[in-house]
Amino acid sequence: MEVTNRFITIKNPVDAAPRESDFETKAEALSLKLEPGSIDIIVKNLYVSIDPYQINRLKSHSSSQSASSFAVRIIPGDTIDASGVARVVASGNPEFEKGDLVVGLLAWGDYTVVKPGGMLRKFDPMGFPLSYQVGILGFSGLTAYAGLFEIGKPKKGEKVFVSAASGSVGHLVGQYAKLFGCYVVGSAGSKEKVTLLKDKLGFDDAFNYKEETDLKAALKRYFPDGIDIYFDNVGAEMQEAAIANMNTYGRVAVCGVISEYTDGKKRAAPEMLDVIYKRIKFQGFLAADHLNLYQDFISTTCNHLRSGAIYPLEDISDGVESIPSAFTGLFQGGNIGKKVVRITEE
Amino acid sequence: MEVTNRFITIKNPVDAAPRESDFETKAEALSLKLEPGSIDIIVKNLYVSIDPYQINRLKSHSSSQSASSFAVRIIPGDTIDASGVARVVASGNPEFEKGDLVVGLLAWGDYTVVKPGGMLRKFDPMGFPLSYQVGILGFSGLTAYAGLFEIGKPKKGEKVFVSAASGSVGHLVGQYAKLFGCYVVGSAGSKEKVTLLKDKLGFDDAFNYKEETDLKAALKRYFPDGIDIYFDNVGAEMQEAAIANMNTYGRVAVCGVISEYTDGKKRAAPEMLDVIYKRIKFQGFLAADHLNLYQDFISTTCNHLRSGAIYPLEDISDGVESIPSAFTGLFQGGNIGKKVVRITEE
Repeated sequence: MEVTNRFITIKNPVDAAPRESDFETKAEALSLKLEPGSIDIIVKNLYVSIDPYQINRLKSHSSSQSASSFAVRIIPGDTIDASGVARVVASGNPEFEKGDLVVGLLAWGDYTVVKPGGMLRKFDPMGFPLSYQVGILGFSGLTAYAGLFEIGKPKKGEKVFVSAASGSVGHLVGQYAKLFGCYVVGSAGSKEKVTLLKDKLGFDDAFNYKEETDLKAALKRYFPDGIDIYFDNVGAEMQEAAIANMNTYGRVAVCGVISEYTDGKKRAAPEMLDVIYKRIKFQGFLAADHLNLYQDFISTTCNHLRSGAIYPLEDISDGVESIPSAFTGLFQGGNIGKKVVRITEE
Repeated sequence: MEVTNRFITIKNPVDAAPRESDFETKAEALSLKLEPGSIDIIVKNLYVSIDPYQINRLKSHSSSQSASSFAVRIIPGDTIDASGVARVVASGNPEFEKGDLVVGLLAWGDYTVVKPGGMLRKFDPMGFPLSYQVGILGFSGLTAYAGLFEIGKPKKGEKVFVSAASGSVGHLVGQYAKLFGCYVVGSAGSKEKVTLLKDKLGFDDAFNYKEETDLKAALKRYFPDGIDIYFDNVGAEMQEAAIANMNTYGRVAVCGVISEYTDGKKRAAPEMLDVIYKRIKFQGFLAADHLNLYQDFISTTCNHLRSGAIYPLEDISDGVESIPSAFTGLFQGGNIGKKVVRITEE
């Protein structure tokens, strides 16, 4: 049986804020029957993850590209890989069989042909929506969990500030920190998001950074006793303001710097005297380095989900054709929570 | 007996590069006999430490001033305290007696009246020059030792870069790192200093940053395999260049940022994508937090001194009146090694 497999690629390197016109949908014929002897696995994609960091792979040059598989450059015309959920259609690998639900590194497209060595594993949805596998029970969740607990190392009662707090990772960081016993304030880019953080997700407070002319003064207002942990998703001025407001022995978990991704000139330049005199620790991290926490993360998070203590925000679009707008929307603050594209209804 | 006690103060807050004319020498009559019942201690200063961080205490405003006793503001007209070596002249404290050699927080002046609660302790010179107590066997040494071993956490064979490598702390960091088994390159501001680092202190290599137009390219040349630990004494562009050249899991020990101290607009703005993808840890520190290492630091360092394995550089000026030029010289690269003023011959 042969199908038409659509996938998304870029026309050119994307070095500024991405536009939908930077992308194109390609289509190719794909046989769903494997050649005899093939050890490939063909999967039908169900959900694919849409994450800001991907922009760094679409640029013409990334100085960091050799430092991590998360930074491997995408060449115009190539498929774009991302984490996703899929159903096995055909398998030459004895560990997988037709019908298996899998999670792994898939294409932004209808199908993925997973070659030997590709990242793929079977999973049990445990009664949760399949999309959770790329969100709260996937890398977004592990990023929030590892960044907060392994890099931030909170103590009960400490003051935690989260930027992009309604984003895929931020909204989970805030909830984990609250459940752990911290005081949590988040920043977001709209009134609607701020209300959601306070009323639905249980943040102690939240503010719209677009309404603040002086971020340093704003944080001083929300943290009169200082910040102990800053979970940084945005970089630039907000990072500078957070460091100015940090307490002695404060920790900064640098997860992402979305405000710097699309503007090569935008940089955080924190006051180093604060870093020295307040002995601030500052650390970049990737969830992939913290897989030792995985079982702990999954069991804690599933318990919270079952008891209703944690609330995952998902923002789901439908169809391969919605991927470019889903992705470009991330840089306009369009999403609330984890952005996912549902490729097809099961 | 009454003496004339001269001490150095500032006329006005010092917000730019310090000039000798920012300082003045005051003189006051001081009785060397304590009032009956006084528990003060009067000491005759022998050596006082001259350190760049003091500039941050002389400014009209320091945002960090409440974060650490090292940042407490000096008001124009007040005495300026610094670590130093002295001889007790009179003591109302039963733990000290006339003639004791002491190290502690003294005035930039001829004498210090140490009030109850002041920092002072007796010491045994162990056959070493008294000035070592404010240098290699004092806070400069502990700063180098703690920053390298506790913050940098080197492994044998790792690549270490030290800026201001002929400075009070830098020249010790490089030697500790070499003795530990690391590959060490230092930057300094003159040909003479570079030669000293390579020929006398055993650095694997060294360069004059003033001769480099592209610091990133320079570090790439000296570290073709990347930097594992950057011991930062200067901040700004050098910090950016070091981070651009760091390896995965690199560590930055932020000890000082002398190039930023006298220019409020000068800041390091490192590429955060490097920090994230390379999982760089970045930490400000003060030696005072690492007193748990003190015994270990002293015994290791004394052994190295006795065997001749470590070579302390000292740059000694004479007399209270030389303090302003000694201090301003730090910001012009005038010193080689630890800057100390000998107040008087014993």
